[in-house]
Amino acid sequence: MTDFSEPPGAGAAPASRRPAAGAVGRSAAPRATLGSVAALAGVSKQTVSNVINAPQMVRGNTASRVNAAITQLGYRPHRAAAQLRTRRSRVLGLRIPNRYTDAVFDRFLHALTDAAGALDYRIMLYTADDDTAEIRAYDELLDGWDIDGFVLTGTHPGDERTSYLSGAAVPCVTFGRPWDDSGHHPWVDVDGAAGTRAATEHLISHGHRRIGFLGWPDSSGVGGDRLAGWAGAISAAGLPALEPSRAVNDAHQGRAAAAALLDHTQPTAIVCASDVLALGAISEITARGMEVGRQIAVVGFDDTDISEVSGLSSLAQPLVEVALQSARLIAALLEKPADGPPEHVLLPPTLVTRASSAAFLP
Amino acid sequence: MTDFSEPPGAGAAPASRRPAAGAVGRSAAPRATLGSVAALAGVSKQTVSNVINAPQMVRGNTASRVNAAITQLGYRPHRAAAQLRTRRSRVLGLRIPNRYTDAVFDRFLHALTDAAGALDYRIMLYTADDDTAEIRAYDELLDGWDIDGFVLTGTHPGDERTSYLSGAAVPCVTFGRPWDDSGHHPWVDVDGAAGTRAATEHLISHGHRRIGFLGWPDSSGVGGDRLAGWAGAISAAGLPALEPSRAVNDAHQGRAAAAALLDHTQPTAIVCASDVLALGAISEITARGMEVGRQIAVVGFDDTDISEVSGLSSLAQPLVEVALQSARLIAALLEKPADGPPEHVLLPPTLVTRASSAAFLP
Repeated sequence: MTDFSEPPGAGAAPASRRPAAGAVGRSAAPRATLGSVAALAGVSKQTVSNVINAPQMVRGNTASRVNAAITQLGYRPHRAAAQLRTRRSRVLGLRIPNRYTDAVFDRFLHALTDAAGALDYRIMLYTADDDTAEIRAYDELLDGWDIDGFVLTGTHPGDERTSYLSGAAVPCVTFGRPWDDSGHHPWVDVDGAAGTRAATEHLISHGHRRIGFLGWPDSSGVGGDRLAGWAGAISAAGLPALEPSRAVNDAHQGRAAAAALLDHTQPTAIVCASDVLALGAISEITARGMEVGRQIAVVGFDDTDISEVSGLSSLAQPLVEVALQSARLIAALLEKPADGPPEHVLLPPTLVTRASSAAFLP
Repeated sequence: MTDFSEPPGAGAAPASRRPAAGAVGRSAAPRATLGSVAALAGVSKQTVSNVINAPQMVRGNTASRVNAAITQLGYRPHRAAAQLRTRRSRVLGLRIPNRYTDAVFDRFLHALTDAAGALDYRIMLYTADDDTAEIRAYDELLDGWDIDGFVLTGTHPGDERTSYLSGAAVPCVTFGRPWDDSGHHPWVDVDGAAGTRAATEHLISHGHRRIGFLGWPDSSGVGGDRLAGWAGAISAAGLPALEPSRAVNDAHQGRAAAAALLDHTQPTAIVCASDVLALGAISEITARGMEVGRQIAVVGFDDTDISEVSGLSSLAQPLVEVALQSARLIAALLEKPADGPPEHVLLPPTLVTRASSAAFLP
């Protein structure tokens, strides 16, 4: 039988929890410990431990006294001991991407912390430079911090992370579908193609006929999905298929690619794979003395703060819903072994229209 | 003696770690367990446990065999067992603010995850609606997840969180100084007054004489600090003390406050308490047909992505350094009881000049 570790009370804090010099107890009562429960109930610490761990070993009126003391003092047994019994930590790992600013990830992180918390899970963060380092981090976190499972983001073709976790029988859910056959796990994703299709149809309904696409260099995965929605809507409407322009996700690179798009294809509207690229396009259009939304319409993707400030129409990902579904799926996997194929949730983004794509008849 | 909990190997995964249907082991070797180490060394699991927990109980050549097997298999004892021995989880709690987009917090979070990771700590997130809820969350996290200590942000006058933690003898470090006598804990902060002073002196050196301030309604804490730097530089230069204009941290509110500032004080330059307020000012100036950086100079605070895209001069907080220092201070507190007053680190921000405050002689 594992005994309880005692949370440090004010009188018995281990060195590592001693307050800094100058700190004195003021507002807080000392936290209840196994010892204070035992003292109040007039029993040994072992008896308190037995009441919680092995109640059949303790006589009824002794157990009642101990339970009353536990309630009165608000004592909660230490989770580390509970972990050894249940092998569950209620902790989910989440890699924080290397780029310091990724509004979509950060919003998802906030929403996931909330959604996981509502199911009594906590999110533990880690960093990794690449997939190989991330796989190393899994083992560290599983061994060192006893993590129950992982929430992965940034899935991509050839993603070794999900096959590694499947092989190690570690539960995971991904925000992002598998872009090949690498994953047999539950996932939640946003339907990027549906988003760019909606943006393109919106522009068509406003009279645009030459609608360009400013996307990312890699046409696989998320970038290809967003390109496909635009291309499908253009094709369905029988409009000219202007050659897309491409840049990495950076406003300066986006501006250069927008310049090429304007020069080579003379669009009256541009659907962009991200708000960051859209900002590059806005800079270039403005620098050419044209007004965004009057001479050239622009639609972004992600509906960041920047969109609102810039009057940029954009596609809003339902990140709160993505987080709720992700938390639900991994909690289900942890709490009940899967008895069917893993569940997949694909959510549409919402087009938010602003001045950058206001009514316009070229 | 606490025994080890066995990390689940592929052959003995508890139900909760069973792979989803369809998942099969592929790339990963089964994770080493106490049992596989024992089998390889030809000893009992108890002997393996003794080698790690109580080596004096085990004969030398048996211990050698076990240690060789541990090395060969890459076995790492389960952290939950180690926690019970050391009462240390190597987990730090960090509250994620309610606002979904806070570029400064998010950058700090990334940098702190890195800095804590380098010291073998992990960051666990939690949410709370207010200080009272945050204090409740402390107890949940201490009892339920065995957290070693907390990194707090958003310190403010009358902050009950730090006095609560001091009273409960729970180590904490704050990003943000205590704005009254509530804290006797180590802290790291950015010198906001030094930042706005540098911004104001920069504008003065470019010929501006009527320099306004667009700040937050609450003049205590961070907002008051940023206002004080501007006011000090204005006073030192003997320039007119224009009445500041105030708004909550929102671009629309900021725009309205900027309009009032322009109408009532006719500034040629505006120092803003944040980039978000600065964006409001830019919108208003542009809407009046004036050019930012030519007719009216604007300086923001926080050097967000928005600054770079908008050509906004701004003050960059040294968030990587703040994170490194925060991690260092709490690790020191956890690893060695404080034997002197708590350490405080105040770091200056860096003025990044762009077109919005280009050379100008009104």
